[in-house]
Amino acid sequence: MSLLEKTIQQIGDLDRDSMTKTQERLNNLIKPPGSLGVLEELTLQLSGIYADPMPKIGKKAIIVMGGDHGIVEEGVSAFPPVVTTLMMPQFPKGVAGVSVLARHAGATVTAVDIGVASPVDHPGVLNRKIKPGTDNMAKGPAMSRDEAIKSLEVGIEVATEEIKKGAVVLGTGDMGIGNTTPSSAILAVLGGFSPAEVTGRGTGINDEVLQNKAKIIAKVIEINRPDKNDPVDVLAKVGGLEIGGIAGIILAAAAHRVPAVVDGFISSAGALIAARLAPKSINFMVPSHCSAEQAHRAMLETIGLRPMLDMKMRLGEGTGAALAITIIDASLKILHEMATFQDLGLA
Amino acid sequence: MSLLEKTIQQIGDLDRDSMTKTQERLNNLIKPPGSLGVLEELTLQLSGIYADPMPKIGKKAIIVMGGDHGIVEEGVSAFPPVVTTLMMPQFPKGVAGVSVLARHAGATVTAVDIGVASPVDHPGVLNRKIKPGTDNMAKGPAMSRDEAIKSLEVGIEVATEEIKKGAVVLGTGDMGIGNTTPSSAILAVLGGFSPAEVTGRGTGINDEVLQNKAKIIAKVIEINRPDKNDPVDVLAKVGGLEIGGIAGIILAAAAHRVPAVVDGFISSAGALIAARLAPKSINFMVPSHCSAEQAHRAMLETIGLRPMLDMKMRLGEGTGAALAITIIDASLKILHEMATFQDLGLA
Repeated sequence: MSLLEKTIQQIGDLDRDSMTKTQERLNNLIKPPGSLGVLEELTLQLSGIYADPMPKIGKKAIIVMGGDHGIVEEGVSAFPPVVTTLMMPQFPKGVAGVSVLARHAGATVTAVDIGVASPVDHPGVLNRKIKPGTDNMAKGPAMSRDEAIKSLEVGIEVATEEIKKGAVVLGTGDMGIGNTTPSSAILAVLGGFSPAEVTGRGTGINDEVLQNKAKIIAKVIEINRPDKNDPVDVLAKVGGLEIGGIAGIILAAAAHRVPAVVDGFISSAGALIAARLAPKSINFMVPSHCSAEQAHRAMLETIGLRPMLDMKMRLGEGTGAALAITIIDASLKILHEMATFQDLGLA
Repeated sequence: MSLLEKTIQQIGDLDRDSMTKTQERLNNLIKPPGSLGVLEELTLQLSGIYADPMPKIGKKAIIVMGGDHGIVEEGVSAFPPVVTTLMMPQFPKGVAGVSVLARHAGATVTAVDIGVASPVDHPGVLNRKIKPGTDNMAKGPAMSRDEAIKSLEVGIEVATEEIKKGAVVLGTGDMGIGNTTPSSAILAVLGGFSPAEVTGRGTGINDEVLQNKAKIIAKVIEINRPDKNDPVDVLAKVGGLEIGGIAGIILAAAAHRVPAVVDGFISSAGALIAARLAPKSINFMVPSHCSAEQAHRAMLETIGLRPMLDMKMRLGEGTGAALAITIIDASLKILHEMATFQDLGLA
């Protein structure tokens, strides 16, 4: 059995007994029942994930998957692919957006070259390159089926390594010029949307490029005819290496009973692939923000996730996941540090 | 000139020169321009408030205003007023929801008895009681015009004290059984909504009580006929002492050029009063979350604020403000800790 199959088989259910106990404590805290909303939902989910009614704050790790996209030849992005190569070293150097926000959240950042077009020149970036960017999917599949499976498995391996090193919360992040295009294509195929409905401005394209991008996405789907009932086929034909890597992170997190905090639009495309490969993995996903990318809310709704932050962010990298991690920690402090009605001598 | 008038007169504009410099730095950080959304907007706003292009993280203080409401006689709440009295000592004891989340955010909590029905038995609660709860506004005004002005001035005084002690960010919070009713009434009058549009479930009332509550709000407005062009009249006739206190906190923050982080529905009612007393104070408000109280989004839109958190919270106390404070700190770290294109030797 392959690592991918084994990982999917390993994914279990949330622990209802622990959640019942956590719910009892939440109801006894000195506040109207349910009045802390998503903070209470988060503690319940963590209780179910860890099978621990009083989960504690532990190590947090954000994994940034970096990959490039042959489709940029078609002029779908505002930036050239060299930006991916230039940005990768900035993550371990601690000066990228996610580096700053991860530090704020007390999380580490691990950057992975899973498919950057040029060599990445920094020892702090994990070299797990499958190939130097996907092929131009306007002319054929983005990658082979084997490469797609490999991208999922690189994600699984890197995530498992972080968990072995003690991480109890994983966050996903992406770096890859052009990667809203495959993310939109994945949503169109798996969510049943038209190309126009799923196409957005990415890092900031104008109206003309936007219209072109929607046409390209239509063409990509028409040429490759991905099978919507086969998520690996969709990933291979219209996806991306870093998107496969992110899906792998989420599957590994679920298999090892650790929450996977899903960042923005690209991470959500990975989450959608993971959800279709293993529907039980959805229980282990924690959504973070609704990005400025116009189809992000539809993507999250397609998976069944509801974002807690609405900050018009569209940087990716795991920046939204980092902010959500600070809120997860807050939710656990609520469980441990608020008084109960019993503490105050009240029924 | 009264303290209230003096405070309103003192409120100035955001410093555009500082904001221009901050915007330049934001545009040079290694990310697409504007891609950090609200994080960038926050740094810009703080730059304008402090007149400092590189604002730093400093002391943060949340002020919880506690008051009771004569209107609870009409059966508008799921909880009895004694809960206000019982909850007040929990803030300085550090075991209430806002105590936990403020600690998480590195903020202090100051609880103020501005109008709790019974004596509050804890030395940590500031006694600034104007009277033991408002009068039943279904039978006449909630308070006199003098008492309304006094509630605003207590807020101004307490906030000014926190600023003198070094706070550079203030958060607002409320404690008061029954206080969604005056908040809804204020929104109906100042925002031009019908009672049904502004009435919500507060801490958790059922359908029957909800219908009764909307009728009570209609009656309260009909009996008292508050003048929508006179915010003090609205506060006096259909408001609350803690709502006046919160409006005062916001006015003082604006006068002293400090951001006021606005919590949920009740704090937003205070913010709406402040906005109508001094429209320039809006520039100094930082919205936090959109609460589960159904009219909260309409309230924020009426003021011109857009919430960054959407967590179905409805506890009040300043819990949403505390979470927003962690995001404000994150925004300042972005400004200071991310590399610029120049740092990387790029144009």
